[in-house]
Amino acid sequence: MRRKSDRFKYVARSCKEILDIYGEQEDGIYYLTTTNGMKYQTFCDMTTAGGGWTLVASVHENSIYGRCTVGDRWSSQQGNNPNPPGGDGNWSNRNTFGVVESATSDDYKNPGYYDIVAKDMSVWHVPNNFPMEHWNLAAILRYHTDNSFLRLYGGNLFSLFKQFPVRYSVGSCSDRGPAVPIVYDHGDRESTRNLYGPRSRNEFDPGFISFRAINNERAAMAICSGVKPRGCNTEHYCIGGTGYFHKDQCGDFPSFDWDRLGREQGWSASKEMTESAVLLFYR
Amino acid sequence: MRRKSDRFKYVARSCKEILDIYGEQEDGIYYLTTTNGMKYQTFCDMTTAGGGWTLVASVHENSIYGRCTVGDRWSSQQGNNPNPPGGDGNWSNRNTFGVVESATSDDYKNPGYYDIVAKDMSVWHVPNNFPMEHWNLAAILRYHTDNSFLRLYGGNLFSLFKQFPVRYSVGSCSDRGPAVPIVYDHGDRESTRNLYGPRSRNEFDPGFISFRAINNERAAMAICSGVKPRGCNTEHYCIGGTGYFHKDQCGDFPSFDWDRLGREQGWSASKEMTESAVLLFYR
Amino acid sequence: MRRKSDRFKYVARSCKEILDIYGEQEDGIYYLTTTNGMKYQTFCDMTTAGGGWTLVASVHENSIYGRCTVGDRWSSQQGNNPNPPGGDGNWSNRNTFGVVESATSDDYKNPGYYDIVAKDMSVWHVPNNFPMEHWNLAAILRYHTDNSFLRLYGGNLFSLFKQFPVRYSVGSCSDRGPAVPIVYDHGDRESTRNLYGPRSRNEFDPGFISFRAINNERAAMAICSGVKPRGCNTEHYCIGGTGYFHKDQCGDFPSFDWDRLGREQGWSASKEMTESAVLLFYR
Repeated sequence: MRRKSDRFKYVARSCKEILDIYGEQEDGIYYLTTTNGMKYQTFCDMTTAGGGWTLVASVHENSIYGRCTVGDRWSSQQGNNPNPPGGDGNWSNRNTFGVVESATSDDYKNPGYYDIVAKDMSVWHVPNNFPMEHWNLAAILRYHTDNSFLRLYGGNLFSLFKQFPVRYSVGSCSDRGPAVPIVYDHGDRESTRNLYGPRSRNEFDPGFISFRAINNERAAMAICSGVKPRGCNTEHYCIGGTGYFHKDQCGDFPSFDWDRLGREQGWSASKEMTESAVLLFYR
Repeated sequence: MRRKSDRFKYVARSCKEILDIYGEQEDGIYYLTTTNGMKYQTFCDMTTAGGGWTLVASVHENSIYGRCTVGDRWSSQQGNNPNPPGGDGNWSNRNTFGVVESATSDDYKNPGYYDIVAKDMSVWHVPNNFPMEHWNLAAILRYHTDNSFLRLYGGNLFSLFKQFPVRYSVGSCSDRGPAVPIVYDHGDRESTRNLYGPRSRNEFDPGFISFRAINNERAAMAICSGVKPRGCNTEHYCIGGTGYFHKDQCGDFPSFDWDRLGREQGWSASKEMTESAVLLFYR
Repeated sequence: MRRKSDRFKYVARSCKEILDIYGEQEDGIYYLTTTNGMKYQTFCDMTTAGGGWTLVASVHENSIYGRCTVGDRWSSQQGNNPNPPGGDGNWSNRNTFGVVESATSDDYKNPGYYDIVAKDMSVWHVPNNFPMEHWNLAAILRYHTDNSFLRLYGGNLFSLFKQFPVRYSVGSCSDRGPAVPIVYDHGDRESTRNLYGPRSRNEFDPGFISFRAINNERAAMAICSGVKPRGCNTEHYCIGGTGYFHKDQCGDFPSFDWDRLGREQGWSASKEMTESAVLLFYR
C-alpha cells in the first residue's frame, strides 16, 4: 500500500496525464488537481483501449418511488416543478457531490466534470453498491467513443450542455443534441436493446450515446446511454433531466418503471438496468 | 502543529494500525486509507482500553419535528413511505456523508464503516455541537465491547446489517439481531436506564448493545444503544431505521419524543439523550 | 503547477498565516488545518487591502421557487416551520458543506467558519456559476471592514451568532445585532442602494454590513450585506434565516422576489443581486 500513498505528490489534471506523465498503468484511485489548484480523488481506468480514462460522474437512481426528491441530483431535488425549468442544473454548473468509492451507491460528480478538457467518453453501467474492485467485471454494459466528438463541444459535458441545455420546454422532440457512435467493451447492440423495455426498443437505434433528448411533453433528458432515439418517448430510456416531467415521472431515471419496476414489459426498462449506476469517464 | 501534518504520510487502514505500526498514542485526527487507496480523515481514540478505536459514524437527530426529511440519513430522507422498505439503506451500503469535526452537528459516515475489518465497537453519546476536543469529557455515556463479536458478522456493521437487514416488514418483533454485553467507560447500568423514558425502562435490560430491533408495527431499527430489548416498543429507545414507521414516527431517533420532547415522561427519552449524537467506533 | 502541490505541506489555520508565515502572496487555493488537525482546502484572497483573507462560506440561492427545501442550507431544508425556531442552525453550529470551487454554484461552509479567530470580514457578491479565476473581476460588489469588530464577538460569525441567535421569535424588529461600517473595494453606496428594490431603499442606509435583523413578523435574518436596516421589512434585503417566515417567504434569500423576480420594482431586489452568491471572508 505504501506506493499508493506516493500518488498524492502527482500534479495532474486527468488520468490521461497520470498515465502519460507519471507512467502509472494500474487501475485505481489517484489524486487529481484542477486548473485552480484544488485536489480531489477519483478512479482511473488505465486498461480500456489504452487507458487514461477519468471517472468524473455517476448517475444513480436512489429510489424510483421518490419523484425529484432528495437524491435526484441529476434532475431536481425540489419536486416536480416547471420553475426553475433547468431543475438543479447540475449538468451545466460547477456543483460537485459524492466521493469516488460511493459512485455506485449514490450520485457522484467531481471537479473533473467541468475542469478536464477531453476528447472522448467511456460509460460503465455497474450494478448498485458493487465495490470498486469489481466495477469492471460486474458491469452489465461498457463502451467508449473514439471519434474525439467532445472537441466539437468544448471538451466536456459541462460545455456540451451549455450548448444543449437540459431545460424544460427548450424545444421540441426533434431538437436533439449529438448522437455519437460507440465501440463496445462489454456487451453489443443486441444486449443494449434488451436492457430497455420492449416498447422502447421500437424507437431507438443501439450503438450510440446521445445527448439532450426531448420528449413529447417537452421535458429534456441529458443522456441516452447506448442508444440514439428515433421517437419521442425518451423518458423511458434516457437519464438525467429537468425539474419537470408530465405525470410526475420526475427523477434521475425519469420513467424507467412506467409498466412496473424492472418487469421488462411495455415501456419498463430491465431490472438490471434500473438497478445499475451509470459511470461517466472522460479521456 | 507541524507534527500533525506529517500524519498525512501514514498509510493505515484503521486507527489500530496507526497505533500498532506508527506508534501514535495521541487522540486526534489522522488520515486513513481504504483497501482501494482512498484517503479520508477521522478521529482516533488512542486512550480507551488500550486505544486504537476508529470513529466510523455518528447518528445525529437534526430535528425531531422533521419526519424522515432532509437530515434523517440513517432512516430515510424520502418521507415516511414503505417503498422502498429499506429507506435510504445507509446501514448496508457504501454511501458516505459528513466530515469528522461535524460528527456531533450532523450525521456522519466515513469509508471505515464498510472498509475496516474489526472485532469490537465503542459508542460515545456526545451532546450536540460539542467540539472534538471535549467529546470524551462531555459524553453522557461511553462504553465498548470486548468479546470480539464483530468477527461473527463479517468484521463491521456494513456486513452485520447485510445479515440482519434494517428493512420494513422483514420479520416480527422476536427476529432481533445480536445483543452484546458492554464494558462501561463512563456511566453504568443505572445511568443508562435513566437516559430513556420511564415506560421504556420496563422493557429493556441495560448493559448491552443490540442490533436490528423490530417493533410491534414491523418497522426495523438498527441499534439499541446500551440496552437489550425485551419488549416490542423499540421505537422509543432504538435508533436508525427503515423508511416507514407507524403514525409518522419516522426519523433517525424515531419516537424519542412520544410523550413530548425531552420530558422524560411516559415513553419519552431524556432531553440529554435526545440532544446527543451517537458516535460509533471500531477496533 | 508543481509549486501549488507543495502548498499541502503548509500547516496554517488561516490565509493570514499562509501570508505571514510562508510568505505566499498569490491568490488561490491552499490547504488549511484546524486547531484539531483537520485539513481542508479553500480560497485565499492575498490581494485586497494587504491580503490574508480566508473564504469561509458562501450563501447561494439555488431556487427562489423552493421555499426552505433542499439547498436552502442557511435557513432551513425542512420546510417553512416554526419548529425548530432556529431552522437548520448552520449560522451557529460546526456543520460544513460544499467545496471551494463550487462556492458560486451552491452553498458553502468550511471549518474556518468556526475555527479561525479573526478581526475583520470581507464580502464579495459574485454572479452564480462564475469560475474561481474570475470571481474578483466578475463581482458586482466587494467590500471589507477595517475596525476589528469581530474581536468584540468572539472572533468569527459562529460566536457572533451565539450572542445574536438567528431564531424565530427571539425578539422584535429593534433587537438587531451589530451594524459595522464598510470600506468599498468595488462599488459604492449608490451602487449598493441600486442592488435592492426601490421600496427597500427607503428603509436602509448603505455603507454597512449588519447582523441578525428581525422583521415585522419576528423572523430573524443573519446578514444584511452592504446596508444597515432602519425599517422592519428586512426579508427583502437581508439573507439567511430561521426556518419560519410569514407567507412562506422562507429561503436563503427570503423574499427577494416579492414583486416578481429580478424586476427591480417594489420590494424586489435586482436580478444581478438575486443571481449572485455572497462570499464571506475572514481576516
